[in-house]
Amino acid sequence: MQRNVSRREVLRGLSATPIALATSFLGPQSNQPALPAPPALPALRVDSRKLRERIESLSVFGRPAGGTFADGVSRTAYSDADVEGRRYVMAEMKAAGLQPRIDPAGNIFARRDGREPALPPILFGSHIDSVPGGGNFDGDLGSLSALGALDALAAAGVRTRHPLEMVVWAHEESYAFGRGLACSRIVAGDFTPADLDEVWNGFRRADAIRKIGGNPERIAEARRDKGSHHCYLELHIEQGGSLERQAIPIGVVEGIVAIDRHQVKVTGMANHAGTTPMTERQDALLAASYLTIAVREVVASEPGRQVGTVGRIEVTPNAQNVIPGVVRLTIEVRDLSPDKLKRLADRIRQRAADIARETKTSIEFTSSNHNTPANAALEVQRAIERSARRLGLASHRMPSGAGHDAQMMAQLSPMGMIFVPSVKGISHSPLELTSWEDCARGADVLLGTVLQMDSA
Amino acid sequence: MQRNVSRREVLRGLSATPIALATSFLGPQSNQPALPAPPALPALRVDSRKLRERIESLSVFGRPAGGTFADGVSRTAYSDADVEGRRYVMAEMKAAGLQPRIDPAGNIFARRDGREPALPPILFGSHIDSVPGGGNFDGDLGSLSALGALDALAAAGVRTRHPLEMVVWAHEESYAFGRGLACSRIVAGDFTPADLDEVWNGFRRADAIRKIGGNPERIAEARRDKGSHHCYLELHIEQGGSLERQAIPIGVVEGIVAIDRHQVKVTGMANHAGTTPMTERQDALLAASYLTIAVREVVASEPGRQVGTVGRIEVTPNAQNVIPGVVRLTIEVRDLSPDKLKRLADRIRQRAADIARETKTSIEFTSSNHNTPANAALEVQRAIERSARRLGLASHRMPSGAGHDAQMMAQLSPMGMIFVPSVKGISHSPLELTSWEDCARGADVLLGTVLQMDSA
Repeated sequence: MQRNVSRREVLRGLSATPIALATSFLGPQSNQPALPAPPALPALRVDSRKLRERIESLSVFGRPAGGTFADGVSRTAYSDADVEGRRYVMAEMKAAGLQPRIDPAGNIFARRDGREPALPPILFGSHIDSVPGGGNFDGDLGSLSALGALDALAAAGVRTRHPLEMVVWAHEESYAFGRGLACSRIVAGDFTPADLDEVWNGFRRADAIRKIGGNPERIAEARRDKGSHHCYLELHIEQGGSLERQAIPIGVVEGIVAIDRHQVKVTGMANHAGTTPMTERQDALLAASYLTIAVREVVASEPGRQVGTVGRIEVTPNAQNVIPGVVRLTIEVRDLSPDKLKRLADRIRQRAADIARETKTSIEFTSSNHNTPANAALEVQRAIERSARRLGLASHRMPSGAGHDAQMMAQLSPMGMIFVPSVKGISHSPLELTSWEDCARGADVLLGTVLQMDSA
Repeated sequence: MQRNVSRREVLRGLSATPIALATSFLGPQSNQPALPAPPALPALRVDSRKLRERIESLSVFGRPAGGTFADGVSRTAYSDADVEGRRYVMAEMKAAGLQPRIDPAGNIFARRDGREPALPPILFGSHIDSVPGGGNFDGDLGSLSALGALDALAAAGVRTRHPLEMVVWAHEESYAFGRGLACSRIVAGDFTPADLDEVWNGFRRADAIRKIGGNPERIAEARRDKGSHHCYLELHIEQGGSLERQAIPIGVVEGIVAIDRHQVKVTGMANHAGTTPMTERQDALLAASYLTIAVREVVASEPGRQVGTVGRIEVTPNAQNVIPGVVRLTIEVRDLSPDKLKRLADRIRQRAADIARETKTSIEFTSSNHNTPANAALEVQRAIERSARRLGLASHRMPSGAGHDAQMMAQLSPMGMIFVPSVKGISHSPLELTSWEDCARGADVLLGTVLQMDSA
């Protein structure tokens, strides 16, 4: 799993010297003279050793019994491991001189005053809940880098103009209650009191929120207004392989893609696999197979970074000696452009109609839902690029194919996200890995971006 | 569901007069002068009204609560409904003057003496267990027609040369314990004592056999030797649509096809459906889709009546936002020719290798099993044809794509099977339907074939 870091260092024209500690002000200077000179801000660094220690310490909460860091974590939202992990992070925040508080939705916030109290705060952070069988970087890196950034400012005695606020969002992953971004969604106002009655695994959502220290009776107070923040920033692992493949240490997120999701039912005729001639069959799985390939072909037929997936399929009766009668499957297509999504969906439906006719089945799109993309603000993208450049790090604009709490915060203020490479693009897996060096670089760029946005 | 019988009568050049009762000796004469004249045997008929009454009476055991005959039956082997259905059939056998006995395997036998006690018996019958959600003709028709044939002989005072033996096989369907033809298999000697320890649904097989009146301690005594019977005959619904489509009332089974079954594992790489570019994917479901289509194409590429099916598929992790990492699926191919099966399997494996390479997955055939076809004896096929001709019924030779107890009995003696049309080819479904007229014709042909074979 070990990346050949020195080869990549050479590619980037960087020295392979150890990352400087947080107290050092001497970052490498930008070597991209075509762009305007960066403003004169201190090149603060996050303590990379402390960051690593905290990620490793947090990893024990939800670790498989008898496992190591490499065995990943199952710290699903509202689990005992989640409660313990949150307790650990809050203890670290207190040790760093902060006063963490849990909002009624269960999110953890901590504020550091600025020089101009009337200004809205710069909000930044991530989450620490995981999928079952997840890794130790998704969410954890952004949450603990936010704390590391506040540490660095305190250590350097730097007081920003804007108040700063770090956040550890609760229930980001779409596992518990079947829906993700759940508690940032409450802050953005996408919530009704009836949602508190939702039951999952015999667990009422109000009780789940109470378990992590939230207050369902006052849930409405968790909501924040548009303009409550100067901006929202989040550092996250890429969860794809493009930064690693291109040997670029920093991704500047242009936006979080929109997702079209379709539930599809293919209806044929279940019949005896031994006695029904091939020409008489109405095989729902055969039709579903043509459709799966059609999704791939339609999505790949246009240039761009759109993706399309058939991830879930259920066959009835699913017996080796019975021709499949009904297949239910999901199609999802993601892209930053709603127009492109609409065009691709239309073409997939057209292909489905052709396939149904040819296979003597019916193919029905039983439900579809579409969300809108969340664009990152251009000024925040530029601040991230400046921050990377000050550290001598190459960067690259890219969409986020995955959802993040940042997309909820984009409804309240300008938003930006920083991506760091994921080894082999693996995420939501114990094999998820970002090198400690890339973690440190991401944390430094986050800190630099906070300072860039503070002066904007 | 009602077939247009009169149209078919016209096609066959038959009058639409009601079926004669069992006591009538006056069947229509053959109108196919090109064939040799049938031997002078009485053209006995089975009582078709009684046959229908018995099929309807048996249908209540395992009928869905509140349902009617049209709602089918769930009389799975060893269920309470199976025990009750067997009790009903044995009571009818006793009322007909027979002495039913249950062999140690659980099969029900009853014997009618012949004029020459040294001759081996002619064995005929079927089963009465069903799949869950099955119909009222599969098995029941053959079992109750066997009883009807014995009734007709008794009513006519006809004593055959050979002893006659009817049988109701236990546990024919492959549901309980995951394997079908279970109790005829014991009679054919394909059984080991260890099989009695098999557990299914918390139910030990020895106890299952005991529940239906068998005797697991003496199971070895259920075995019969090669040559124990003069021949074995079975009437069954076609379970396919070819007789109905061609408007032919009687199918003469040439043999029961061999089945090649393959368990296949497709391994790709599970990954995030939003962040993994299309070109980087190793999508196991995409590969499985190509393979499903390849099975269809390879099987349909040769002339003949072979069939091939992908009936079962399981995807891991099977989440709409995760690229499928592993797919397990089953392939089965059926034909009378083992050579053809081998050729088709080779071509499917070749296509799988190509697909694996193109999709960056691996496709592994983790297990395969092959059985041999069970050929019907030519002299029995000819006896069925003569019997049909004497009744003025067109017949047609065809393979059986489904398995039947007859394939086990083919190991002990010459075997033959009579098929009657299944409306729309539907079976293993409450929609399974054979017209009462076709049921009566099949029963008459069975009786005629017993007499033909008796004189052979």
